[in-house]
Amino acid sequence: MDIGYLGPKGSFTHAAAKAFFQTETLTSYPTLIQLIDARVAGQIDYAVVPVENTIEGSVLQTIDGIYQNLPTIQGEITLKIEQQLMVRPEYAERWKEAELVCSHPQALAQCQTFIREYFPAAEIEQMASTTLGAKRVAETPQKIIASIGSCTAAREFDLTIVKRNIQSVENNETRFWLLGDQPVESQLNFQRQKATLLVDLPFDRPGALYHLLALFAEAKINLTKIESRPQKTQLGEYFFIIDLEVPKDLQTLDRVIHLLSQQEFPVKFVGNYPTYRKP
Amino acid sequence: MDIGYLGPKGSFTHAAAKAFFQTETLTSYPTLIQLIDARVAGQIDYAVVPVENTIEGSVLQTIDGIYQNLPTIQGEITLKIEQQLMVRPEYAERWKEAELVCSHPQALAQCQTFIREYFPAAEIEQMASTTLGAKRVAETPQKIIASIGSCTAAREFDLTIVKRNIQSVENNETRFWLLGDQPVESQLNFQRQKATLLVDLPFDRPGALYHLLALFAEAKINLTKIESRPQKTQLGEYFFIIDLEVPKDLQTLDRVIHLLSQQEFPVKFVGNYPTYRKP
Repeated sequence: MDIGYLGPKGSFTHAAAKAFFQTETLTSYPTLIQLIDARVAGQIDYAVVPVENTIEGSVLQTIDGIYQNLPTIQGEITLKIEQQLMVRPEYAERWKEAELVCSHPQALAQCQTFIREYFPAAEIEQMASTTLGAKRVAETPQKIIASIGSCTAAREFDLTIVKRNIQSVENNETRFWLLGDQPVESQLNFQRQKATLLVDLPFDRPGALYHLLALFAEAKINLTKIESRPQKTQLGEYFFIIDLEVPKDLQTLDRVIHLLSQQEFPVKFVGNYPTYRKP
Repeated sequence: MDIGYLGPKGSFTHAAAKAFFQTETLTSYPTLIQLIDARVAGQIDYAVVPVENTIEGSVLQTIDGIYQNLPTIQGEITLKIEQQLMVRPEYAERWKEAELVCSHPQALAQCQTFIREYFPAAEIEQMASTTLGAKRVAETPQKIIASIGSCTAAREFDLTIVKRNIQSVENNETRFWLLGDQPVESQLNFQRQKATLLVDLPFDRPGALYHLLALFAEAKINLTKIESRPQKTQLGEYFFIIDLEVPKDLQTLDRVIHLLSQQEFPVKFVGNYPTYRKP
């Protein structure tokens, strides 16, 4: 079985993929577009993609890639995300003097409070990944610079972690989805069954979202998330991605989906899947 | 009057700021956080911030910055966004041989189709801004590399534009907001009056969004956009940002806002403002 994840090696998505599949071959993909393309083309059996973080919200490339390619969601796993501050070992005692802090924009955002407190005057540099931030620190021996990322990133580049768990929010978590054609068994603890739908809402139908939500409310189906994204045609044209708790009586959900399509809402059903949390 | 914009000089936000204020002092800010902070601290009278693009959707740092700091929106302007492919002048004839294409992730996303067609094998590198992409090209004379950005970026770094308007979508536009304490007059063509609200929706109230939308639907108020963003406390806690067309009868809107607060939806009203489009 071939499994792809959003790399590089040591990324949080890598950790999620390892939690799903303890013993399988894992292949790193540099971008979400390439990863989802590989899954849709059948080059890999499963793709593990980040979906949503407590602080940063939805991973927009994942949402848009699912809207464009309609892979099936076979599972969800939630991981705790902890960010570490790292420097070259010889600067471990002098980390507060760092003149530059670099990392991925999401990690920088997750550690805003820490950065403001400890590095009010330092230069902040955005990198394409937290791993590239660690690499930058490793390759700059002549200056004290720091980066923010996972323990794995520190280990890979022989950096010293000088402050642990510097993210602003204690409950910093990320949800990941497993995309594939077949259900997969997991040894993780089952949480609840969820389903995800995509619905196009046309620009010229005021109140359409209200009518859509009425159908779910009347059926007493609990929506866990609803989010709008652009259809990428013109400003004001959106689709909605809706996550919901699957009711025990599956027919209720089928009936709502049938009613939605009768009202000419183009609905795409992209998964009915178990959710897990890594302890 | 002091006006700040999301830089660097030559950015699309710079163009939006120039369209609003033809003759005023414009100050570039490197990040949206610093720009919104400067407005809230009163260091500048107005901040010009990007809000939403046709392809990429909302600018999340703007939405989150408004939620956290509650500045007032005094106007909206929509600009057409056109992306250009540029190389060093001596490589103008050989641009198709470029081994690397670099730009900001949003610009790369806007030109995906073009990149796939012309550069299927080239390395793609994400930069912190389109301007830094152009700088990278200017500073790499030994290799053929290309960057994607505005005409202004090409001009600033003496690069040659070798393909014009390479974005995937013809109607590629971005909306910008003007944040400030006082209304401001503009010579641009008025389009319509809009208002923006922020509403916290608690995790443990299923159907809350439906009840909220019912109030607007019953008052026949047309919502132009509704989007959820995380409250950054824990997964599943969201706030909604709602843009709407201001009804001619302003009392209708006041009544709905009153009803919302009666139902214990914490509502923040962040602006009632004119919208413009640059011709």
